[in-house]
Formats: sequence, structure tokens, C-alpha cells
Amino acid sequence: MSDPIIYADIISQPARAVLSYCEILGLKYTLREIRLFRGEHLTEDYKKISATQTIPSMVHGNLTLYESHAIMSYLSDLSPIGKNWYPEDRVQRALVDCYLHWHHFHIRLGCGIYLFNQFVAPVLYGKSSDEITKMTSDAREDAFIMIEGILGQGLYVARTQNPTIADISCYAEVVSLSQINFDFTKYPNIKTWMNKIGEIDGVKKIHQRFFKLTFKPKL
Amino acid sequence: MSDPIIYADIISQPARAVLSYCEILGLKYTLREIRLFRGEHLTEDYKKISATQTIPSMVHGNLTLYESHAIMSYLSDLSPIGKNWYPEDRVQRALVDCYLHWHHFHIRLGCGIYLFNQFVAPVLYGKSSDEITKMTSDAREDAFIMIEGILGQGLYVARTQNPTIADISCYAEVVSLSQINFDFTKYPNIKTWMNKIGEIDGVKKIHQRFFKLTFKPKL
Repeated sequence: MSDPIIYADIISQPARAVLSYCEILGLKYTLREIRLFRGEHLTEDYKKISATQTIPSMVHGNLTLYESHAIMSYLSDLSPIGKNWYPEDRVQRALVDCYLHWHHFHIRLGCGIYLFNQFVAPVLYGKSSDEITKMTSDAREDAFIMIEGILGQGLYVARTQNPTIADISCYAEVVSLSQINFDFTKYPNIKTWMNKIGEIDGVKKIHQRFFKLTFKPKL
Repeated sequence: MSDPIIYADIISQPARAVLSYCEILGLKYTLREIRLFRGEHLTEDYKKISATQTIPSMVHGNLTLYESHAIMSYLSDLSPIGKNWYPEDRVQRALVDCYLHWHHFHIRLGCGIYLFNQFVAPVLYGKSSDEITKMTSDAREDAFIMIEGILGQGLYVARTQNPTIADISCYAEVVSLSQINFDFTKYPNIKTWMNKIGEIDGVKKIHQRFFKLTFKPKL
């Protein structure tokens, strides 16, 4: 089978998570850039590839996947080191799955959706929503308190002893906040963890491209 | 190891999905009822079990899981028929995972969170939010158009040939709308699918208890 094709934009948190993971796994893949701010995800051509018209998506043989976490789980089987990042042990995998599902209404809502509402919605729709600001800020605070506690036990974000795809996904979201000078003072364990995850080779490579596009991270 | 303990309230969509799946798998499990409307999920005792204080959660040996989809994935390994509902084949599993992650910001947001905002928030907080009503309604319409199309190809919601845990999770959310006389006229495939999934033994058993608690489903 040919290499997976990843449709992505480095500006997107879930896309950076998938690209970071491709690099970590040392996979051969084809990157097709779909620029969100140019509306390239909204074209009829892209709709034929991704029914949801979201970023990232993946095509591998006859399989088309959207949703970054499903893509990362699938890619794990394509490399011998995938099982280090998405463990095969039933209990360890359950812990990672538990994080990956919890992520959507907590880390994704509190970081990516918060940033979208604050900074993109005013450009696209003329305003942000105060109620969505409150909802996303509340979600982030709850989520950060939880993660801070887990990291404080010497664990990674999915309550595992070693880093997993959960950390890659979480990092891609949380690091975006450093771009708006988010104050991490209340979360020293998250700051330490971000520095550690940000130094992982594939994560560093992809995020260096992202930081160049935008600002420098301030942690 | 002793049987899994499931903490649940039949009023909760994700809890009904997990309980339906326990029944389908024929698992021995202990049900501990945690009544949301009595605030039993907010007690210190429950916080010791579920750090997120959400419903459902599961304890099995030393493992504690929240997030219904992670629980359902884990339970699949406890029964020989689990692989029928959460396939082991890499591509089939990826399709199911893709649905399960997509579900949160589409089906869960458009059904469960919509209902919470419309009917529970006014009781708890004195009002619902118009902006959240719009956001959840938009998510539901997008999601239903997508699901209607997939079902129209003769597939189940995760684009599989056979029903999976994706259908159980989706059903538990969508059927709640029938309780408020939601108009499914635009979605004939979803109506037909709901009738089919609702007849699956474990799903029927759990939802009969739910319908008795509330109203009769009107499809």
C-alpha cells in the first residue's frame, strides 16, 4: 500500500498533533497542505476527501479518516514503536482512550475552541461570544486543575508512566495558549511538562515550523 | 478479578450507552446508581471514585475509568462477542474510533448538551443560553445530515457493515430527542435506524427503563 496522505495546516492544533506523531514514528507520509485561512477546507475537491471538511484528515489505501485521535490510533499500527505511544496492554490503552475522549470537552474546548472564539470568530463573524468565552474558560480551568494534579503525581496526562499520544495531542492544544501570553503561573507542573514534551524530536520539528509562523512561545 | 462496577444514572445518555453494552455483552456487573438530579455525583465520596465527578464511571480492579467510549472499548475485551461490536481489524476499528471521537462535538453537543442547555440549565441556573442553543442546534443539523447520508448508503453510523458501539452511543443520544417530540421528518434514515437499534436486546432493556422514567418515545 502507498504511504498515508495527511491533509493538514500547521496552524491547526489537531493537525500538529498528527504531524508530530508521524515524525515520532518515522513514517513516510505525504503532506498535502490545506490552508484554513484561505478556506481551502471548504472546497468541493476537499469535501470529496473529507466529508467533514475538517483538518486533519488522512487517506491510506481505501480508508479515509477524519478526527486526529482516530488517525493517531491507526498510525500506531504502522510502526513498530507505535505500541510505545499507544500501548497494547488493555489497562494502559484504556487510560489513553479515557484521556483522548475526555480531551474534546476539556482541553480542546478550553484551548482550541477558546482561541477560535476569541481571535478567529471576530474576524469571520464580526464578534466573539461572551457565553462561549465563559464556557470555554470554565472548561479550561477545570481541565488544567485536573492535569496539574495528574502531572503532580509524576504521571503523564493519561495517568501513564510514559508519554503517549495523549501527551502529543494535549501539548498541541496547550502550547497554543503560550502564543497569547497565557499565564501558566498557577500550573507549574503543566509548564514543566510542556517543556519536556516540546523537546521530543518530532514534536519539536513540527512546532518549530508553527512558532515561526506565529510568535515565540512564552512559558 | 471481581466484576466491573458501573456508576450510572439511567437519565444520562452516555450512562445508558454503557449499560446497554454491558447487557449486550452479557457481562456480570454491579450497578451503583448515582442520581444526577440529587447531586450525588458532586459528593466527596463520589469524587474519590471519579475525579471528573461525571456519569458514567467504571471501577474494575485497580482501574478507574470515566468517559463512556473508553469504558465501552475496555469492556469489549471482557466478552468473546466484544469484537463484533468493537472490531479488531485495523481499518474497521479506525472507522469506529473515527465516529467515537467525532461524536463529542457533533452528536453529544447537538443532542445531550442541547437538551441540558434548553431544559436543565433553566432549572439550575435560571436560564438557557441563546448562543449555546444556536451552537448546539447547528452542530446537530450538520451531524444529522452526515449520519443520514451514511445510513443512506446501507451502512451503520461508523461507516461499517454491522452495528458497533458507535451505534449504541449514537442511539442513546438521539433517542433522547424523541422525548421532546423532535421532528425527524427530514431524517427518514435516522428514524429507521433508531427503530432497528432500539430493538437490540440490551439497548431495549435499558431504554425501556428510561422511557418509563420519562415519556414515551415518539418517532
